[in-house]
Amino acid sequence: MQEVDIAFFIESLPSDQALTIFRMLDKDIAAEVFANLPTDRMQQLITDISDDELRSIMSDLMVDDAVDMLEEMPSNVVKRVLKHTGVQDRQLINQFLRYPEFSAGSIMTAEFIELKRQMSVGEAIGHIRAVGEDKETVYTCYVTGQDRTLEGVITVKTLLLASDEQKISDLMERDIISVRTNDDQEFVADIFSRYDLLAIPVVDQENRLVGIITVDDVLDVIEEENTEDFEKMSAMTPSDKPYLKTGIFELAKNRIGWLLVLMVSGMITGEILGYYEAAFAVLPILVTFIPMLTDTGGNAGSQSSTLVIRGMAVNEITTKNLLTVLWKEIRVSLIVGFILSAVNFIRLMISEDGDWMLALTVSLALYATVVLAKTIGGALPIIAKKCKLDPALMAAPLITTIVDACSLIIYFSIAVSILNIG
Amino acid sequence: MQEVDIAFFIESLPSDQALTIFRMLDKDIAAEVFANLPTDRMQQLITDISDDELRSIMSDLMVDDAVDMLEEMPSNVVKRVLKHTGVQDRQLINQFLRYPEFSAGSIMTAEFIELKRQMSVGEAIGHIRAVGEDKETVYTCYVTGQDRTLEGVITVKTLLLASDEQKISDLMERDIISVRTNDDQEFVADIFSRYDLLAIPVVDQENRLVGIITVDDVLDVIEEENTEDFEKMSAMTPSDKPYLKTGIFELAKNRIGWLLVLMVSGMITGEILGYYEAAFAVLPILVTFIPMLTDTGGNAGSQSSTLVIRGMAVNEITTKNLLTVLWKEIRVSLIVGFILSAVNFIRLMISEDGDWMLALTVSLALYATVVLAKTIGGALPIIAKKCKLDPALMAAPLITTIVDACSLIIYFSIAVSILNIG
Repeated sequence: MQEVDIAFFIESLPSDQALTIFRMLDKDIAAEVFANLPTDRMQQLITDISDDELRSIMSDLMVDDAVDMLEEMPSNVVKRVLKHTGVQDRQLINQFLRYPEFSAGSIMTAEFIELKRQMSVGEAIGHIRAVGEDKETVYTCYVTGQDRTLEGVITVKTLLLASDEQKISDLMERDIISVRTNDDQEFVADIFSRYDLLAIPVVDQENRLVGIITVDDVLDVIEEENTEDFEKMSAMTPSDKPYLKTGIFELAKNRIGWLLVLMVSGMITGEILGYYEAAFAVLPILVTFIPMLTDTGGNAGSQSSTLVIRGMAVNEITTKNLLTVLWKEIRVSLIVGFILSAVNFIRLMISEDGDWMLALTVSLALYATVVLAKTIGGALPIIAKKCKLDPALMAAPLITTIVDACSLIIYFSIAVSILNIG
Repeated sequence: MQEVDIAFFIESLPSDQALTIFRMLDKDIAAEVFANLPTDRMQQLITDISDDELRSIMSDLMVDDAVDMLEEMPSNVVKRVLKHTGVQDRQLINQFLRYPEFSAGSIMTAEFIELKRQMSVGEAIGHIRAVGEDKETVYTCYVTGQDRTLEGVITVKTLLLASDEQKISDLMERDIISVRTNDDQEFVADIFSRYDLLAIPVVDQENRLVGIITVDDVLDVIEEENTEDFEKMSAMTPSDKPYLKTGIFELAKNRIGWLLVLMVSGMITGEILGYYEAAFAVLPILVTFIPMLTDTGGNAGSQSSTLVIRGMAVNEITTKNLLTVLWKEIRVSLIVGFILSAVNFIRLMISEDGDWMLALTVSLALYATVVLAKTIGGALPIIAKKCKLDPALMAAPLITTIVDACSLIIYFSIAVSILNIG
């Protein structure tokens, strides 16, 4: 059985049985299984096991897993854990815990292989064999000079394909792709995808190697960042806790903020509608087209904003593309808007017994709404980015609210002038 | 300069200069740079270069890159390319091109290292040194028996940490995580994240090893799959072409289908509204609260559906959790709905000069709308999954349309009974 699967199994057990099974595990895999448990189960186990057992786990746990765990624990648990961690590891963990959340520093690990420039390939392979067991990866090794300055990177593939006598300094890659401890984890993930890396070195301000990030951690980061975007784009405060483990008050807290803001915006739209009370008092049927108009506007706008936000997230679209995007969205909206209005016109000519003035009013308003919605939806995320705001906020909910207000003004303006009412 | 960066640079040049620069590249990196170019630029280059140059690129290109490229090319280009590809590679490429799009077979590569059970560690390392140069990865090696049946997996780390005389059969992992050629690429990506893999073997129905998939390709799959979800959740037909390279007619085509469906649904909502014409003819102010009500309902519902859809995408929520999710969403909606209605009530008492019957009508309708929206938003994606439909379709646009209709019925029913109109 894989460690991950054992962790899944233990997770499904009641806590006393979980403890029994966990104690039966081989020492070699106990730390790995532990690292794969959910936070609440980790905390439970830490509370239940003896000091000796805790010490043994902490000595086998990778620094990045230890840091991830401690970030989620209450302070009394953190204290007990650190008390039973070796001096060196404790110092490292404390240092890592100080890096800002979501930074490269907070996800890196310290278990990497360091080589020296003057080593031969044979010596390097010997060194890897001696220390490789406890390292997060052995496949990318880091060549450091004085003060741990990062001088080069060399892969095990290069080492294996070279002859034993060759010098590391002649083989290592000097054009190093690295990140800084304070870089955002999203930036780190972008670099990984761009250069197809397995691991990346993390350096401090003085270019000293302090850790590495491996691709398995980047997979988690990508999942987190995408979840965050989905949450933001649906008007929620992002949370890194899984849904089923989040309490209802926390869920409510993450949702109420934007709902309140958007509700107030919806009230403003209502005020606008109030100005046209005379119009729909005369012709109440006008009201029945409001949902179709505002929904279509919202959908058309959020299609555009989603594509642009996503394009920016995967670095395809930049703020320089504003005019290109606008021009594209305007042309697409002219096509899409034409089809929608045509269908709508025909449908109204049938259902409203050939009242073509009414059909024209609604269809024209629909056309203008779609064009406006796609223009706003395409432009706002890019403008947000230019203003250093998160483009993901300019998604469906906000776009819908803005487009609602605009489309109602357009609709009733057209109605008042064409139908001669109000 | 990294190959990826050279490709970006070439992409930015006019086509004649691009050709010149490409020809100046070292033969070793030309194929790698080529694989990183966008499809239109690849096609341009293939048209412009000589048969010899094409032959040289094809001999260095990995099979998965060649397959990715040919999938996008017009048939005359494919013919010319295959004509200048070695017999063995051509057969492989043809075989790979037959796997369904988005299957494991379509993204795997054939350049992996095969070892035999009876080899010693020393022999295995010698073999890796001999053939490693042209392999997609050397770090995970595959132990095969007769007919290429997959018998075990061994990593270079294990090899390095063992002594030269040990036998592969004693060291290899027999509990192999593998996928089938027809498995969906999304499933492959899930396995990678779950087990933190660097590469996975792909086997056919008879457990014969036909290829491997490496983590760098999985990063691309994850990006694609997330983009697809974003597109589906914003009512678009997913497309794997980048936004800036998609023509306006294709963009329009991807968007018009759902817009039409949702527009027609919006018309049905309009019909419902028509039933209450008498009510808002008597009290036109009722109309001004429609945008606030429907928008808040739509937002509340899509918050829930987004969390559930995402939870299912990352395998946190399964169809078994239907009742848990429902119970959670109902409780959250009771909290969130209460706050929203309270704010709304107070606001209306102020703006409508203490008309508490009206304030009560709107606030009650709002409360009921939020509770209903979150219940529908939480349940529909799971029910869709149970019916073998894609949960991502039950996102904001559809939820909004459904909730609109419901909330208007609730609103006017309450209005008619409390305000005694209609």
